[in-house]
Amino acid sequence: MNPDLKSRPGLKIRRANLDTGRENIVVMSRHSRALRPEVFRGFSRVEIQSGAKSILATLLITDDDTLVGSEELGLAEPAFRRFACPVGSLVSVTPARPPDSLEAVRAKISGRALAPEDITAIISDISRYRYSDMEIAAFLVGSASFTTTAELLALTRAMAQAGTQLRWEGHVVVDKHCIGGIPGNRTSMIVVPIVAAHGLMIPKTSSRAITSPAGTADTMEVLARVDIGVDEMKEIVTACHGCLIWGGRVNLSPADDILISVERPLGIDTREQMVASIMSKKLAAGSTHLLIDIPAGPAAKVTTAIEAMRLRKLFEFVGDHFGVAIEVVTTDGRQPIGRGIGPALEARDVMAVLSNDPGAPRDLREKSLRLAAHLLEYDPEIRGGAGYARARELLDSGAALKQMQRIIDAQGPSTCRADLGALTGEITANKDGVVGSIDCLRLNRLARMAGAPIDKGAGIMVFKKIGDKVEQGEPLYRVYACELSEFELVMDAANAQSGYAINGRSSSSAATA
Amino acid sequence: MNPDLKSRPGLKIRRANLDTGRENIVVMSRHSRALRPEVFRGFSRVEIQSGAKSILATLLITDDDTLVGSEELGLAEPAFRRFACPVGSLVSVTPARPPDSLEAVRAKISGRALAPEDITAIISDISRYRYSDMEIAAFLVGSASFTTTAELLALTRAMAQAGTQLRWEGHVVVDKHCIGGIPGNRTSMIVVPIVAAHGLMIPKTSSRAITSPAGTADTMEVLARVDIGVDEMKEIVTACHGCLIWGGRVNLSPADDILISVERPLGIDTREQMVASIMSKKLAAGSTHLLIDIPAGPAAKVTTAIEAMRLRKLFEFVGDHFGVAIEVVTTDGRQPIGRGIGPALEARDVMAVLSNDPGAPRDLREKSLRLAAHLLEYDPEIRGGAGYARARELLDSGAALKQMQRIIDAQGPSTCRADLGALTGEITANKDGVVGSIDCLRLNRLARMAGAPIDKGAGIMVFKKIGDKVEQGEPLYRVYACELSEFELVMDAANAQSGYAINGRSSSSAATA
Repeated sequence: MNPDLKSRPGLKIRRANLDTGRENIVVMSRHSRALRPEVFRGFSRVEIQSGAKSILATLLITDDDTLVGSEELGLAEPAFRRFACPVGSLVSVTPARPPDSLEAVRAKISGRALAPEDITAIISDISRYRYSDMEIAAFLVGSASFTTTAELLALTRAMAQAGTQLRWEGHVVVDKHCIGGIPGNRTSMIVVPIVAAHGLMIPKTSSRAITSPAGTADTMEVLARVDIGVDEMKEIVTACHGCLIWGGRVNLSPADDILISVERPLGIDTREQMVASIMSKKLAAGSTHLLIDIPAGPAAKVTTAIEAMRLRKLFEFVGDHFGVAIEVVTTDGRQPIGRGIGPALEARDVMAVLSNDPGAPRDLREKSLRLAAHLLEYDPEIRGGAGYARARELLDSGAALKQMQRIIDAQGPSTCRADLGALTGEITANKDGVVGSIDCLRLNRLARMAGAPIDKGAGIMVFKKIGDKVEQGEPLYRVYACELSEFELVMDAANAQSGYAINGRSSSSAATA
Repeated sequence: MNPDLKSRPGLKIRRANLDTGRENIVVMSRHSRALRPEVFRGFSRVEIQSGAKSILATLLITDDDTLVGSEELGLAEPAFRRFACPVGSLVSVTPARPPDSLEAVRAKISGRALAPEDITAIISDISRYRYSDMEIAAFLVGSASFTTTAELLALTRAMAQAGTQLRWEGHVVVDKHCIGGIPGNRTSMIVVPIVAAHGLMIPKTSSRAITSPAGTADTMEVLARVDIGVDEMKEIVTACHGCLIWGGRVNLSPADDILISVERPLGIDTREQMVASIMSKKLAAGSTHLLIDIPAGPAAKVTTAIEAMRLRKLFEFVGDHFGVAIEVVTTDGRQPIGRGIGPALEARDVMAVLSNDPGAPRDLREKSLRLAAHLLEYDPEIRGGAGYARARELLDSGAALKQMQRIIDAQGPSTCRADLGALTGEITANKDGVVGSIDCLRLNRLARMAGAPIDKGAGIMVFKKIGDKVEQGEPLYRVYACELSEFELVMDAANAQSGYAINGRSSSSAATA
């Protein structure tokens, strides 16, 4: 036997100081004799193993010995965290076979419906970070062409079971969810304290903005800490009946977050994926009674009554199957709710409503009361039809505000700067008339350009709503920004296309900076 | 105006010593004030701009100042090469909007057929590396659910026009292509010298193996240099009427290579994508007459005569549309052609046939002669039916061998080690009987396990074919490997599952190392 021909030694792992988001990335030296890097290509998939531990990762190759030596394997931060072996551990690296469940994805692409166990295997692999982005995209696009109701149920269940599954003492655990898309519309932060003040349990987790200028978690973060884990969440809910925290650390339906991170850039948005996403989170959260808010309007996610009805039926079907009481309401999605768009501005609206400030936005107050009314009627003690009066009583009496203060105290103080952006400019009407329509997508985009949600104090304050009379030169809304480059960008964009149509014709407004 | 609020400065580019395969990757410092990295996430997409130059890339973030400083942007090697600006150039980095053509991909996913200009835009963006892997996957999977004939034609044309387009002097420029999947089967290396010796022009470019143990380029590389660019290729073809080079440097239909690199790991293999892939390469190569070899067999890409006929019709349809004379032959795809599987072993088979070695594999000789006969009949001077006799004359007389030597000399000497692997072991029959079937996929997999195509001398030498009588203990094939770990792996695997069925029952063979 040629003594040169011996088995390959393992590599010692070290940390590579690289934030690679969700993806597992490892770095190998081109000079690594142990690995014969010529077998691998840059960006090919490899499997890292140490004993029973194994992760799949995407490979980068380097000639730079300071980054990784020839006897080493560099694990970028997410891969290092997930692999959870100490620096210096010996590992083997082999070309990765695709996850077995990818066979089912191929079957789906070729037009077959999947069995529940196939879907469970896919979701399990995805939630353990064994799918690359392109593999996730293949699953999503394959499912977008058709998803049977049996597949939808299996997908919802598999996603709900793939992460934390909360269970609560009470028989009635309520929750609300808005499918989103409407600027402002921060009703959860008013509904939760009302419902919790009444004594119903409402353990609310929310997302941060991905493509919008603020998620409920971003807005709540202006008032309190939201980055809270499961144990602390349980304490808060026990003490206050409710909470308003970011869902990220609770790890409910983690596959959902991963799927969304591929759906969003691709712009895939099917009914089935939306329902599976929302219902899996709610099942994992242990909700027994759920209110879904579907805003309908020309620039909302749902544009027609027919589409809203279809979506409602699908939510009801899945809710019935899993024994969750579901109510779906279609609301006005033609324009922003409240005045603020952006975390700090929205937080001001919320606190104004809770404080019964006479200047508080009426539409936000009314919508919140109506949603809270639905939830309160889940309480067997409340007579049918009496929910609204009870909600108003809790809000007007200051009980809801007091409950909000308790929740804020329990979650702990915010660490964010919440002052509004110092750079402001107003977008004004270019003629006399009546506001005919407001483009929600446009206002969302402008608020993001201004810096929201990264800059908590950036965004838009809306002065005029549909049906309001305006005079030429009167401000339609005010832009807030923290950075000059962004301020200039958003003012130019808003002046070119304000998002407001006055008297049914498009306005070309002038700016006052 | 607050003096802190000023426009963001540009970043200086530097090279990041990272091979990231096809993907554009850039690295930014988390401390980069200029960029506010918190706007970006790891693995989000960014646009790098300098004047009119722009690339899209995936972002990594680091805290390691030696990798990139806070005023710098690190471009990994592929991104640096494609961006083609000197180190130190000032660039801006902004969150990337998805490529505009992704709108058409979304339309495709939602079930619409695409217009030719949509497809041209998609292919143009893909070939300029503006699509991420997940975006490419979305396009492929969306197209896999249905592709209209109009879309197929537009795709073929767009791909052919996206890279180098070769045009030749002669009126008859012939080519052959096998859709692949059969071990051995190295007919091109015999057909090209026969056809070129006759005087027809046959400028053949081939691929390297991606999932098989050898591509024609890998096998030819054992005999000659194959990494050759367009200008040199033209010189060789002018001098020798033909060539046998790797297509990678010629840049024919570059989008095809990118699509394949996503199709393969996903296992997407639709008829339309196969036809567009092959035909785009041949149109770009300037072929006027094309012979397509479709091996059919239980473990081949095409398993039934019906499927072979469908594929043939599709090739003919596209060929007719673009004015390429197409002939499609269905061949026996039940077992390996020739004895060798792996670059050096296959090269030996080829040279044995060309040298009229009495021990040369008959099936490889016969198949090559038949394919060459079809091509020779494209010459108006050759009478219908006289192609085979002419092909045999050129082979038997040594004219083909002489032509092969000319081509090898023109391409230049090989730089590879071509000796066979020093570690060998035989897989033997476990009983007396007749070989009933051979699993081509299994033999391909075993040859790759042995080290092919990376180790040119690794692979399998087949002794028994379907219908051959065997006695218990008689060798079925011999394994060649260069590394002990791989040798052990492949012997274990071959003994567990040899790929041979004897007397219609599966053999469990014993090894002699």
